[in-house]
Amino acid sequence: MGNKDQLQLGDHLFNSRLLVGTGKYENHDIMKKSIEASSTEMVTMALRRVDLKNPRENVLNFIPKNMTLLPNTSGARNAEEAIRIAKIARAAGCGDFVKIEVISDQKYLLPDNYETLKATKTLAAEGFYVLPYMSPDLMAAKEMEKAGAKAVMPLGSPIGSNRGIENKGLIKILINEIKVPIIVDAGIGKPSHAAEAMELGAKAVLVNTAIAASKDPIEMARAFDYAVKAGRLAYLSKFGEVKAQGDASSPLTGFLRKEQ
Amino acid sequence: MGNKDQLQLGDHLFNSRLLVGTGKYENHDIMKKSIEASSTEMVTMALRRVDLKNPRENVLNFIPKNMTLLPNTSGARNAEEAIRIAKIARAAGCGDFVKIEVISDQKYLLPDNYETLKATKTLAAEGFYVLPYMSPDLMAAKEMEKAGAKAVMPLGSPIGSNRGIENKGLIKILINEIKVPIIVDAGIGKPSHAAEAMELGAKAVLVNTAIAASKDPIEMARAFDYAVKAGRLAYLSKFGEVKAQGDASSPLTGFLRKEQ
Amino acid sequence: MGNKDQLQLGDHLFNSRLLVGTGKYENHDIMKKSIEASSTEMVTMALRRVDLKNPRENVLNFIPKNMTLLPNTSGARNAEEAIRIAKIARAAGCGDFVKIEVISDQKYLLPDNYETLKATKTLAAEGFYVLPYMSPDLMAAKEMEKAGAKAVMPLGSPIGSNRGIENKGLIKILINEIKVPIIVDAGIGKPSHAAEAMELGAKAVLVNTAIAASKDPIEMARAFDYAVKAGRLAYLSKFGEVKAQGDASSPLTGFLRKEQ
Amino acid sequence: MGNKDQLQLGDHLFNSRLLVGTGKYENHDIMKKSIEASSTEMVTMALRRVDLKNPRENVLNFIPKNMTLLPNTSGARNAEEAIRIAKIARAAGCGDFVKIEVISDQKYLLPDNYETLKATKTLAAEGFYVLPYMSPDLMAAKEMEKAGAKAVMPLGSPIGSNRGIENKGLIKILINEIKVPIIVDAGIGKPSHAAEAMELGAKAVLVNTAIAASKDPIEMARAFDYAVKAGRLAYLSKFGEVKAQGDASSPLTGFLRKEQ
Repeated sequence: MGNKDQLQLGDHLFNSRLLVGTGKYENHDIMKKSIEASSTEMVTMALRRVDLKNPRENVLNFIPKNMTLLPNTSGARNAEEAIRIAKIARAAGCGDFVKIEVISDQKYLLPDNYETLKATKTLAAEGFYVLPYMSPDLMAAKEMEKAGAKAVMPLGSPIGSNRGIENKGLIKILINEIKVPIIVDAGIGKPSHAAEAMELGAKAVLVNTAIAASKDPIEMARAFDYAVKAGRLAYLSKFGEVKAQGDASSPLTGFLRKEQ
Repeated sequence: MGNKDQLQLGDHLFNSRLLVGTGKYENHDIMKKSIEASSTEMVTMALRRVDLKNPRENVLNFIPKNMTLLPNTSGARNAEEAIRIAKIARAAGCGDFVKIEVISDQKYLLPDNYETLKATKTLAAEGFYVLPYMSPDLMAAKEMEKAGAKAVMPLGSPIGSNRGIENKGLIKILINEIKVPIIVDAGIGKPSHAAEAMELGAKAVLVNTAIAASKDPIEMARAFDYAVKAGRLAYLSKFGEVKAQGDASSPLTGFLRKEQ
Repeated sequence: MGNKDQLQLGDHLFNSRLLVGTGKYENHDIMKKSIEASSTEMVTMALRRVDLKNPRENVLNFIPKNMTLLPNTSGARNAEEAIRIAKIARAAGCGDFVKIEVISDQKYLLPDNYETLKATKTLAAEGFYVLPYMSPDLMAAKEMEKAGAKAVMPLGSPIGSNRGIENKGLIKILINEIKVPIIVDAGIGKPSHAAEAMELGAKAVLVNTAIAASKDPIEMARAFDYAVKAGRLAYLSKFGEVKAQGDASSPLTGFLRKEQ
Repeated sequence: MGNKDQLQLGDHLFNSRLLVGTGKYENHDIMKKSIEASSTEMVTMALRRVDLKNPRENVLNFIPKNMTLLPNTSGARNAEEAIRIAKIARAAGCGDFVKIEVISDQKYLLPDNYETLKATKTLAAEGFYVLPYMSPDLMAAKEMEKAGAKAVMPLGSPIGSNRGIENKGLIKILINEIKVPIIVDAGIGKPSHAAEAMELGAKAVLVNTAIAASKDPIEMARAFDYAVKAGRLAYLSKFGEVKAQGDASSPLTGFLRKEQ
């Protein structure tokens, strides 16, 4: 694979295809070590957790220096709020990337594709590198791409549910039809889920809860790093056929008869 | 994880929990490089492929020297034939390990648990390190363990089918109830399947077709190495809960309101 | 269950919870007999198949007289076209019901939720009984309900794919959160899929391809009738627990010991 | 379908393909009504529940008169005990049918295929109509058939777990390869599971817990009756193809253009 297989988001290149979050960790120190163990190069955090007036508690101090920041608009309930958060983040020096999260439903925390699209249009036009988080829907994804999104982030299953890639059929269609990278976000609860997303052809995955809520987040971060690499390598190497019947690895030849 | 998490089979210790096969490769050279790329330490081969009279073509010459050999009894249709093959293998210097494969059904290539148990009893009593390949069945697995098997190898789905861990429920029961290691064998078609087996608590997996039949077996071998490590690390690190609803990684606080 | 468990769409009541289509049948006669065998009370047909100038070929002549018609806007690529078709259908005497289908993607035939919502708003305001066909998305479904839809019809998997209820998680959320009936449409390939949708709590299902493309559509229509009734009855009767372990139906008591 | 599609077990013919149990009901009266609602013609009961000395409490008094009895050997931990129970049942006038259940594992209640086979051999030779309950394993099923079993009853998932047909792959192989009827037993928790078993080609299903543990067992019994009929009719009518992409029921023709 070597250094040629990189994730491209706009004009940025990344060696790691695992994006991680910063929520739900027991403390900032475990968070920092988990981020390092994951080999990630892009870390998302809710802007509200960036306490600009209290640098001691500022989550940014615990994110390794070489990371690309992906501030998210968690807390936004409509496009307008998302746009406002994105601008505060850029002004605060978090860079040009932004993950749009617009959630009006507080029970399942499902994204609002329509408001997300509106925010994507505005922010992309203002030079942001926009990564919209969305319900997997082909038409909405096409609109996001047309609006200038640098990637599209469909949910595998509801945030924090750890149920895996439930919407496989819809996500595979996005992978087939959308030209910007598909990054599976939300619902990935196990390394096997991350590997499966990559085997399907996702260009990256974002994992937070599954790492942070593990008994050993640092080792779990390492597990996800391996799983994403496994899935990506397998996707590039291509699979053999799935067969209805068995097919012997070591077929019967006349061995026993010959030896007699 | 370090050097303490090792696979133990009898009194042997292994750092890698991926066992690989030698069938179906395009040529011996690709096989050798794939074995190396997999980081495996145990390689299975059908004894009939060990051409004792023609050393040039002997598959053993292409298996890296530091490997533990796991000759299998592929081709055996009953206990007696399996026992005979095992003894030829040991006499030929392949060591004490043997994977018992007794297959009378030539369509689905499903193992015969009863004949396999008979061969396991005899060979374990003669000092072999026996690894029986079997249909996932708790009672039969208990008998194999009692007979002295060093591990039990249930099939995930029919050999070469690449359909993954179809018999999850039955395999999980073996993992819970059998004390010797459970090694999932057959049917593993993708790295995500291997990771899933390890996450369930299997102690190792055996993969052949999925690597050998890939367009790029060497890279696919590497992918499986990563996947097995991912699944094992995750199993040891323990998972958070699976939830019915969403659960925010970055919950809404008064952020937007405060900033106004 | 009796006559109290009826499907309500607006002010109409239906005893059958199976809606069927009229496409893909070998001929009109088999279609008619299949509709009758299904016990359905509501039949959908593409308006383009209603040849108003050639009464002989008019599909309407082959739909049993007691059926409620559900003209659909198949062929519409945006809200405007859907609205136009709906109005032609009503003017032609097809009644007030309309299923909105707006499909711009000709490969996967996935609905365009945004255009569908626009058509729903307009037509509901004009007194139509609107049933929008949609990608399963909670926010979009809430908007459809707010716009006056009499039911919401999420797809189980792509039209004609026969792959079943792939989007179970998202559909279950719609069932929990939307007050108008959820009718699962598209992708139902087997009676077990229809039963599963009903067991989840869908209020009805729409089936076309699975009946019409069967070798024996008339008997298959009867099979779906039974399956929908089975799933509905089961939903109303409520399920026992799903258990991780076994639980004996006939537990061991001292029987054998006593008899000795 | 008519009167030609009957389940044949030995020389007995049955119109219903749903077998039901008698355990776990709240009381005998609900049990009786549930049996009647199910349209079953064959009822299984643990012999230990047949209190021969206390006719009032005797479960047999609550089984409708026209039923074929299928006494089971629940409680047996080996072949010998199963044989003994079967003989007591026949002597007590329960008829020639017997379901062999040999369970030594008290945690998962999984059958012991080897002891079951021994009991099958003995009892079939003595003229019993033997239906062995088993772990799904092709070789063991072939042996049971050879021993004279009138049907083979693989488990879908552990007894009482309600998890459905987990072992689909193995059961489909039995359906393809075994000539006597395959009756799926254990684990069927919902009508959709029963329909699925029948669609796969099972000749019948046995359901107990899912009916008895429902909030409304009588209606649930009716639901299973419908589901089994649905699955059987569908199997006989044959399915259309499963497709990767969508396939329009009402394809776009020039309709809108023509009408302009």
